[in-house]
Amino acid sequence: MNRKMVLLTWGYSNPRTAKTAAGLLRYCPEECVAVLDPDNAGRKAREFLDAGGDTPIIGRLDEAPSAKTLVMGIAPPGGRIPDAWRAVLLEAIDRGMNILSGLHDFISNDPQLAAAAAARGTRITDVRKNDFREIARRQGLNPNCFRVHTVGHDCSVGKMVVSLELTNGLKARGVDAHFVATGQTGIMVSGGGLPLDCIVADFVAGAAEQLVLENQHHEVLLVEGQGSLVHPSYSGVTLSLLHGCLPHAMVLIFEAGRSTVGGIDHVPIPNLVRMRELFETMASIHQPCVTLGIAMNGRRVTPTEAAEISRQVEDEMQLPVVDVLREGPERLVEAVDAFRRAGEWRKFGM
Amino acid sequence: MNRKMVLLTWGYSNPRTAKTAAGLLRYCPEECVAVLDPDNAGRKAREFLDAGGDTPIIGRLDEAPSAKTLVMGIAPPGGRIPDAWRAVLLEAIDRGMNILSGLHDFISNDPQLAAAAAARGTRITDVRKNDFREIARRQGLNPNCFRVHTVGHDCSVGKMVVSLELTNGLKARGVDAHFVATGQTGIMVSGGGLPLDCIVADFVAGAAEQLVLENQHHEVLLVEGQGSLVHPSYSGVTLSLLHGCLPHAMVLIFEAGRSTVGGIDHVPIPNLVRMRELFETMASIHQPCVTLGIAMNGRRVTPTEAAEISRQVEDEMQLPVVDVLREGPERLVEAVDAFRRAGEWRKFGM
Repeated sequence: MNRKMVLLTWGYSNPRTAKTAAGLLRYCPEECVAVLDPDNAGRKAREFLDAGGDTPIIGRLDEAPSAKTLVMGIAPPGGRIPDAWRAVLLEAIDRGMNILSGLHDFISNDPQLAAAAAARGTRITDVRKNDFREIARRQGLNPNCFRVHTVGHDCSVGKMVVSLELTNGLKARGVDAHFVATGQTGIMVSGGGLPLDCIVADFVAGAAEQLVLENQHHEVLLVEGQGSLVHPSYSGVTLSLLHGCLPHAMVLIFEAGRSTVGGIDHVPIPNLVRMRELFETMASIHQPCVTLGIAMNGRRVTPTEAAEISRQVEDEMQLPVVDVLREGPERLVEAVDAFRRAGEWRKFGM
Repeated sequence: MNRKMVLLTWGYSNPRTAKTAAGLLRYCPEECVAVLDPDNAGRKAREFLDAGGDTPIIGRLDEAPSAKTLVMGIAPPGGRIPDAWRAVLLEAIDRGMNILSGLHDFISNDPQLAAAAAARGTRITDVRKNDFREIARRQGLNPNCFRVHTVGHDCSVGKMVVSLELTNGLKARGVDAHFVATGQTGIMVSGGGLPLDCIVADFVAGAAEQLVLENQHHEVLLVEGQGSLVHPSYSGVTLSLLHGCLPHAMVLIFEAGRSTVGGIDHVPIPNLVRMRELFETMASIHQPCVTLGIAMNGRRVTPTEAAEISRQVEDEMQLPVVDVLREGPERLVEAVDAFRRAGEWRKFGM
């Protein structure tokens, strides 16, 4: 399958807000035809999105005549369709393109856009749209499937990236590892998963549990985390996911230089020692769960600063600290794989 | 307003499953005409529901000719319409009655029932149905409004009851206290609130915050809790609510004799000392939050056992332990009001 995607990021071409575009450029590069952003037409994706190399940024859809899919490349708080994008969507539909979106505002529910797509015979896919209605029951978990969960000190710090890098790294070692997507970008990248943040509250843990039950024939599951236990808006999604997937082990991700909650800047983020304590406390209520390593997102700091912060955190936490994009994931892969091989987690319970 | 309600509990006439019926019988007795349960027709509500006194249990709707509303009196896990009830619902609609429901399965979305109501001109109200889409921003909180949150060691242990008893007790002292409903029964009782467990996950904390923002002109808010931080299915709803309403103080509720999660009986509930630690830890991430008292639900134990357990817990926790239904809420009201008057909470932050 090649979706031949144009990634719409107009007005939001930075790696944080346009994290859906950045994720697709990084993990499905062969399917990405162009980035659409009239304000930066003629430039290259890597200049704005920390990914995508020389993928062109275009200003009009007719510059990418082979494209088949227009992707909403952003994940803004609240998830609404930016007003300025409506004309672009209508033009894409008129050109016969499908629409792929991870917004909370479902494009397929928009009367004008839905009617246009129906008339033109193109498909609108809202990956967050779901009717999931099962509660978690904490039954039937395979105690021989090693469950690793990526958690973070905030939103948008790289949980999906670390999960995918760990999955690929373990696979390269011959381990049957599987990435479990829990957010819109991960779903678009992997073609599976459930959009946990868009499920009715009572059923979020149930959805996480179902993703485990469906995939636990693999040796290792890397379950993508969401939000943070200290995030004023999203902590409940984080806890539902943590309790629904019941990990044996976690990898804690932080962005160097970030000290306040993204988008709620008057709220401080506790330090990493405290973050680890909070996650281990809430993960270990019914059976043990340990932290195996720290992933550092270094995009806000220079390589020199990153190296210094990494050393400090490694000293303080006594865990490997790895910037998977700058250094490669290998030291983190080894931490996870060594713990898997040692097998202590088989005594944890389920 | 008098809704002249018949409470349908057929097949589920016990205080735990039929907690919606029990709540309405306790707090809106003048609006409750009868309980509908053919298996127990001729008996009295108090024999099965721990509430409702001599309210009759009837076997057929024509025994309550004055009734105007049929209420789905239960809150089963997953919230579906029991199959056997469909004929009763159709008969009620045929008699011109309105339908009031707190199930996750929306009655108004059922084609047969919706068509019947439309044809007969009666109203179906699904209190869980909502389109709430605002995230929590932790802004605009009134630091002079004292926020008290009822939390519990499990679901269905009496958080709504304790919240209402505290509200009424404070009002009796002349304090401007207000009950904030967060679940279906509380909404039916109070006529306000939002059904937190049925909101899309990303917006649950936002809904709790909005309920505070809308009501913080009162001196004291008693925010009804949901679920438990250790519940495998619902812990995320609990945490979203806790972080969304950002309480200054909590009252912890437990059911004496309950040691495993209701409905997930292979999962143990941690002891009360640990439960208090978990709630205080997660409530105090950004500003202090203290536990002011313990409410004991004594329905599973004899009065003698209850007195003994109450003494033990009071010794261990160094907090007042009160069974608000057996003893009356006064000692708990005093604990909350004394802390309110002392005013230390005004220094907590927001």
